[in-house]
Formats: sequence, C-alpha cells, structure tokens
Amino acid sequence: MRDALVGAAFQLFLERGYEETTVDDIVALAGVGRRSFFRYFPSKEDVVFPDHERCLADMTAFLSEEAGADDPVQRVCDAARLVLRMYAENPTFSVQRYRLTRKVPGLRAYELSVVWRYERALAEYLRGHSTGPRADTLRADVVAAAVVAAHNNALRSWLRSDGKGNAAEAVDHALGYVQNAFGSSPGEPVDERPEDVVVVVSRRGAPMWRVVQEIESAFGRD
Amino acid sequence: MRDALVGAAFQLFLERGYEETTVDDIVALAGVGRRSFFRYFPSKEDVVFPDHERCLADMTAFLSEEAGADDPVQRVCDAARLVLRMYAENPTFSVQRYRLTRKVPGLRAYELSVVWRYERALAEYLRGHSTGPRADTLRADVVAAAVVAAHNNALRSWLRSDGKGNAAEAVDHALGYVQNAFGSSPGEPVDERPEDVVVVVSRRGAPMWRVVQEIESAFGRD
Repeated sequence: MRDALVGAAFQLFLERGYEETTVDDIVALAGVGRRSFFRYFPSKEDVVFPDHERCLADMTAFLSEEAGADDPVQRVCDAARLVLRMYAENPTFSVQRYRLTRKVPGLRAYELSVVWRYERALAEYLRGHSTGPRADTLRADVVAAAVVAAHNNALRSWLRSDGKGNAAEAVDHALGYVQNAFGSSPGEPVDERPEDVVVVVSRRGAPMWRVVQEIESAFGRD
Repeated sequence: MRDALVGAAFQLFLERGYEETTVDDIVALAGVGRRSFFRYFPSKEDVVFPDHERCLADMTAFLSEEAGADDPVQRVCDAARLVLRMYAENPTFSVQRYRLTRKVPGLRAYELSVVWRYERALAEYLRGHSTGPRADTLRADVVAAAVVAAHNNALRSWLRSDGKGNAAEAVDHALGYVQNAFGSSPGEPVDERPEDVVVVVSRRGAPMWRVVQEIESAFGRD
C-alpha cells in the first residue's frame, strides 16, 4: 500500500509536475482513500522522501551500538554510508527524486531539513565520543558537517550522472578525504591502529627539531 | 518604514507568538497598508530575517573583489565573519530571533535555506580558487561546510548566552580550527605566506626519512 502510493505519486509528479498533483489525484491512481494516504504520510512532501525516517532511525541505532575500538570519525563515516546505501538501493527512483527536488523549492527546503537531522545525529555522536579532555562541540560540529558535505558531494555527482558509475567508491573517496583531515588524533595510541593516518600541524615558525619530536611522539617512537 | 515593519512584527511575535500574528496585525500596528508590507517582504517569514539578503549580497561582493595573495580558506573565513557582524550589530534582535526560530519549524527551515545559500557562495568561491590541478569540488564543498559549521557553532553559543561575551573572539577561535585543518596547502610557495600553517599527512608505515623530507619540502628548506 505504502509502495503503491509512492509509485502513483511519482508517476503523477513526472507526468504533471509536483505542484499540479494533489493528494486526491494520488489516491485515485493508487485506488485507495485519502485516509490511507495520511496514515502513511503527514503531507504530500513526505511521499517524496518515503525512506528518510527509516534511514534516520537506522543511523541512530547504528550509532548507539557498541562500536569497540572504532575511531569516532570512522564510525560517523560508516553511518553516512547508510544514507548512500538507501539511495543506491533504487537508482531510478533516486535520480527521479533528485530532478524533482531541484525543481521544487519546497522540496529542496524539506531535503535541507532532513540533511540537517542527519548532521545533528552525527554531531551528537561525536560530542559523546570526543577524545579530548572536554566535550568538544566545535570539533563535533565541524567534522559532522564535513562528513555530510563529502558524502553529499559524491552522492550529487552520482545522481547527476543518472545513477551511473560506482556510488560507493565515490563516497569512499570523499569520506577518505575527511578522515585524512580529521581522523584519529595523534595523541591516541597508534600501535593498535595500523591503518591510522597521522596528521601533523605546525606553525611555519616552529624549529625543525620540535616538529620532528612531535612526529616521533605521534608515531609512538619516543 | 522597513524598520518600523520589522519592529512591529517582532513586538507581536513576542507578545502573541509567530503563528498567531497575521500580516494584517503587523501593518495595523505599524500604521501602514498591506501593500507597503509586501513591497518590502515577500511573506511573513521574510520579515523575521530582514537582513540576510543584504548580507548574502555583501558576501558575494566581498568574494568577487580582488583578494591579492590571500589564502582562499582565509578569504572564505573572512566572508563568514560578515554574517557574524550582522548578528553582532544588534544583539537584542538577534537573540529574540534565535529564540523565535527555535520554536517555529517553518522558520527553522527558512534559516536552513539561508545557511545553505551562504555555504554555496563560499563553495563556489573555493571551486574557482582551488590551487590543485583541477577544480576540486570535493575540497570546496567540505571546506565551505566546515567554515559554516564552525561559524555557526560559535554564533549559537553566543546567542544561547543571550548575546553576552565576545562573539568575534569566539568565531575567530572556531574559524582558526578550520584554518588549521584546511589552510593553504603545502604545495604552495610558503615564503610569501609567513603565517601559513603547514599540514603533513603520512601513513604510519612511511619511513621516517621520507616524512622529514616531506616536511622540509613543505617548509621550503629543501
């Protein structure tokens, strides 16, 4: 029933346009009553994004699982991959929706709200798993925004190419960029993390011996 | 006239609530006609954010000016500071609006759309000023998102504290964090940029001599 409503809605959105399609048109084509529609979807906008609520719930569940020794940045990158998987499950639908969303400002605003909720879920997780001495809300917000931006950069490229190419690879590359910039900090024990990336940040004016000392310390050789 | 409409609107929003206030109520209190309202604001939502369009225009103008030898990341951070300045110009109004926006989902969605437009302006600039061999849209999107997230983290703290404390200092600190992570790349000539930050990224498995070589190269001492 839910799938039939989504199918009928998209058929009409593509034929007539989003604004020109009413909920009455959708239920007539799907062969159900208005009440059935509103049992599944609070509004016409919601039928355009039938899977985000489930995906948000999946993400929250994933982030609340015990993650073991995972780097928190790695963990939020894996959480972002759940969103990609949802899009990649049904490329035709995802591409149709992308085109629709770009044309209708109201849907664009709806999507921005959804993206914001994903970003907040990631930031909340990072706040709760900050490795520094205090809850670092700045780092959490910046990393969450960077993860979402990288994910969406790759996702948009894939959608613009009509769902051709390997979306997962593109997202891996994009998230790898963020992990390189923000991945596990040099202060953590590196011996248990053979794949870690070490990032050294130094003012240009710092003496070379001090820089080398910092690197050796980060590499656990001091 | 415009200021009088904004003043009347906020007086009513605070007294009665946003949803309970109509455009007719606003124009009655301001002592003008409905047409005057719609000459300045397309909708009731727009009167809540009377200054973002000007600020977006200021930001676009700032970014289109010849910036000389500025690091592009520094430049977008300075552009973000224009938004802070707008908020800090009128702390009482900004704090009132923050409280209102948190309570009304429609205003929250409006604000997300505005934030998205700022972010796109910064990303467009970064795409046009990428220092790599090709337009690096991934880096541009990630850095723009990081700058906006850092700015908004500091701005929200300031708004939550009822506009007390030094907003500019908080934003400087937050943007400094992003500049440390993404500031001018090691490939650029550093001699002309004494304040640059050098970031060296290395796999843990790399031999130490190679890491030192990379640092020396980045510091321009090779």
